[in-house]
Amino acid sequence: MGLSPLQSIHMTEKDSIKVVDKVNDMQTLSNSVRKGGRIISFVPTMGALHEGHISLIRKAKEKGEFLIVSIFVNPTQFGLNEDYKKYSRDLEGDLKKIKEIGVDVVFLPDVNEIYPDGFETYVEVEELQKPLCGQFRPGHFKGVATIVLKLFNIVKPDIAIFGEKDYQQLIIIQKMVRDLHLEIEIIGLPIIREDDGLALSSRNAYLSKKERKHAKALSEALREITKSFDQGHNEVKDLIQRGRDILNKSLIYDIDYLEIRNGRTLESKEEAQSGDLVAVAAKVGNARLIDNMKL
Amino acid sequence: MGLSPLQSIHMTEKDSIKVVDKVNDMQTLSNSVRKGGRIISFVPTMGALHEGHISLIRKAKEKGEFLIVSIFVNPTQFGLNEDYKKYSRDLEGDLKKIKEIGVDVVFLPDVNEIYPDGFETYVEVEELQKPLCGQFRPGHFKGVATIVLKLFNIVKPDIAIFGEKDYQQLIIIQKMVRDLHLEIEIIGLPIIREDDGLALSSRNAYLSKKERKHAKALSEALREITKSFDQGHNEVKDLIQRGRDILNKSLIYDIDYLEIRNGRTLESKEEAQSGDLVAVAAKVGNARLIDNMKL
Repeated sequence: MGLSPLQSIHMTEKDSIKVVDKVNDMQTLSNSVRKGGRIISFVPTMGALHEGHISLIRKAKEKGEFLIVSIFVNPTQFGLNEDYKKYSRDLEGDLKKIKEIGVDVVFLPDVNEIYPDGFETYVEVEELQKPLCGQFRPGHFKGVATIVLKLFNIVKPDIAIFGEKDYQQLIIIQKMVRDLHLEIEIIGLPIIREDDGLALSSRNAYLSKKERKHAKALSEALREITKSFDQGHNEVKDLIQRGRDILNKSLIYDIDYLEIRNGRTLESKEEAQSGDLVAVAAKVGNARLIDNMKL
Repeated sequence: MGLSPLQSIHMTEKDSIKVVDKVNDMQTLSNSVRKGGRIISFVPTMGALHEGHISLIRKAKEKGEFLIVSIFVNPTQFGLNEDYKKYSRDLEGDLKKIKEIGVDVVFLPDVNEIYPDGFETYVEVEELQKPLCGQFRPGHFKGVATIVLKLFNIVKPDIAIFGEKDYQQLIIIQKMVRDLHLEIEIIGLPIIREDDGLALSSRNAYLSKKERKHAKALSEALREITKSFDQGHNEVKDLIQRGRDILNKSLIYDIDYLEIRNGRTLESKEEAQSGDLVAVAAKVGNARLIDNMKL
């Protein structure tokens, strides 16, 4: 306690960006920033940053007074046969993009720093994690909730920003924050799309040229559903069939789900209402892609 | 943010003890105490305070600069057929005892304040919760870890004090704190015993006069095992049998477990070593009692 806390923080510079890689150093720094009364805003990422992430980081910069971005590919949210090992990594490119925006610190921990031997504590949002991606990626949202809680306890943000692209993740985190009494404002930002409607995703990099063309059917299917709803169709079965037809026309048959659910509780329904979520997950080539829109 | 935070806290006085019953008020108060640089020490209890609790509260007072005691009988740590409803409650007596020690605030929330409708987020320390009481009280330590994490996020202590009587609970909380990067020092204090050796417990109140006499066999069994170990016996099977004999002599046959395990990992073993835990849980009449000692 005698030393000024900042003196003991190990911080490196990568391309003139301040990088912290130890939990203790990050906590010491965040404690000191909070003590100074500055509002910490935070964007947790798994790197491979695209315009979707950039929009989150820019908003975080605008909302807070000290901006922390984390880059950590979290092993506990990947299933055994999923793409943890081959998940896109581009640290150099990420840091370049971050530098252009200007952030205060990048938190870049090692896997062993976050999950040391003997790690065994997990958090689960038991109901919201069940449907949609939860059915097809067992353990995924447990891994997500756990890493986000850990990062929150390390980075100590006042505000944290997530993309609506991972809609189920967003509302799970909002629920966790409320249930565990964390004093953090969670902000969700709209999906950023390519010109043809494809939602930006680090996994789009897995697509071949041909697959990339077919992939735009995901957003087309969602748009067809929202359009039909706007025209007065509200029978869920019928709306979903219209969407599936569009996917199939683009040779997308490996569909994990295409569903309409309550946008807050994720409960399934037979009759669609304004505010409902339309969400899709499907395999296009080797890439499992997700997308969603609100009615 | 304009108002001084303390102006907006709803605090009542019960027998001239400051009582806070809302989560938001407690957080506002704790934020303000922390901002002032004072060390918050915390003792979470389920009330029905006895000398065991008193020793924790006194130590907390000594270690911190602002002392918060919570009283909350936590429903999520009781099984369906357990004693949640009939668990001893004595708020008036508790407050009297607390007043004698002198604490800064009692946090006394309502069940609905802590578990509002739709609550669904739980934390689990997956390995340490399995053996011993975990085998006989499914969900118990999940409820314990969850309420303690919630209380930590509400009370924001620097130091929290628990009794070694609930040894498995203590090391589960220590593990949770480490795994989730909470900056809280967890202190465990020795079991307080009656003159005949019976560990103090709120559940001792369930014992008839006759059962109370038999109940002292729990600590006698543990003592027999530690004594035999000191005399050179280290075969676990043999040591356990000596303990069981003592329990049976006092007509205690309904034994959930009497085990020797590694005191840090709770791993079972065949050969006892110094530092190992000897732990017992048994039914004496309607009371399920636990006790433990270290070799």
